[in-house]
Amino acid sequence: MRPLVIGIAGGTGSGKTTLTQELIRHFPTRVSVIYHDNYYRRRDDLTYEERSALNYDAPEAFDNNLMVEQLQQLIAGQSIESPVYDYTVHNRSDSTQIIEPAPVVIVEGILIFCFPRLCELFDIKLFVDTDADVRILRRVKRDVLERGRTVESVETQYLTTVKPMHELHVEPSKRKADLIIPEGGRNLVALDMLIKRVERHLGFSLDSSGRIDSL
Amino acid sequence: MRPLVIGIAGGTGSGKTTLTQELIRHFPTRVSVIYHDNYYRRRDDLTYEERSALNYDAPEAFDNNLMVEQLQQLIAGQSIESPVYDYTVHNRSDSTQIIEPAPVVIVEGILIFCFPRLCELFDIKLFVDTDADVRILRRVKRDVLERGRTVESVETQYLTTVKPMHELHVEPSKRKADLIIPEGGRNLVALDMLIKRVERHLGFSLDSSGRIDSL
Repeated sequence: MRPLVIGIAGGTGSGKTTLTQELIRHFPTRVSVIYHDNYYRRRDDLTYEERSALNYDAPEAFDNNLMVEQLQQLIAGQSIESPVYDYTVHNRSDSTQIIEPAPVVIVEGILIFCFPRLCELFDIKLFVDTDADVRILRRVKRDVLERGRTVESVETQYLTTVKPMHELHVEPSKRKADLIIPEGGRNLVALDMLIKRVERHLGFSLDSSGRIDSL
Repeated sequence: MRPLVIGIAGGTGSGKTTLTQELIRHFPTRVSVIYHDNYYRRRDDLTYEERSALNYDAPEAFDNNLMVEQLQQLIAGQSIESPVYDYTVHNRSDSTQIIEPAPVVIVEGILIFCFPRLCELFDIKLFVDTDADVRILRRVKRDVLERGRTVESVETQYLTTVKPMHELHVEPSKRKADLIIPEGGRNLVALDMLIKRVERHLGFSLDSSGRIDSL
């Protein structure tokens, strides 16, 4: 049975991960997730300073071929060895992460709807839509507390690349979405609809008579 | 069993009615619909010319108390006698329409999310989001072909009230939505999710064991 493939896009700090975590919490053994951020290109050819100056918010920053290939493997029921990105050095780390196939595969990333070959693989395309001021506040907290950046470096990166690239690439990609979810993981009505859709998929995939198993 | 109450909002020509019709097509005997437009205030005190000059795109144009009251009656399982609006004379007509209670009640209207007392009664708030140029093209066709207006009168009304009121009231009310649906009734993934959510409601309301009936 082909997995249900859900693409979750939206600007930085929009609440994509909260939504993903809610789905995992509801279906702990049925969901695999791949993160677009882990597919940033490896740039061993550059110094740390050169890598710091790169534009990480443009579609070109990603190794899209690798992601399409690995998503196709997951869809075919094979496990993959996902790259792992290290934010502290701005480069792909040497470790990888085994991701097992599952009945539900979530693909999470800011720019995933900018790639037609990826979009073709999604059964449901969700765009989490949150105001820019709320998003940057979350990003400041996350980058400072979890990724060891300074507020000044977050501000510079945001104004230099994140914001213009959001307006150029992310916002227009919203048109590709099947559903736009205001305030992602905290939107209980949308979450409930999504959960019922997934239950339906799991029910049919577990029991071909069409009855829903009790989840 | 309380009905599932779905509010469907969105600008003029956005595709609200197409979405409503699709839901009716899937659940022909289980859905009742009330249209906000039928709750325009009765203005027998004005001449046709005076009524033509009114702003029909502002929240004040509606008899919101009557709509809340009748929606509460439907939720309580009682039938209602909905007013009927006559676009050709810009006034409420003398006829009414009996609307029976049903397991699913749809409330359709451009401005329904501007009324907190209405919003409180909705289980699911959907906003159909379609580009303004596509919407005005649909409105021109509808008003000229179905409502006997001239293109010039449609243009005047659109630029004088519809567009500014959309920007003032409709667009901000999108924030109240639980889900934003790009291109309403033609969006098959969103429609499928909505249908599965309704099936789930009907299943539970028809069979308390939690099994879904085959619709």
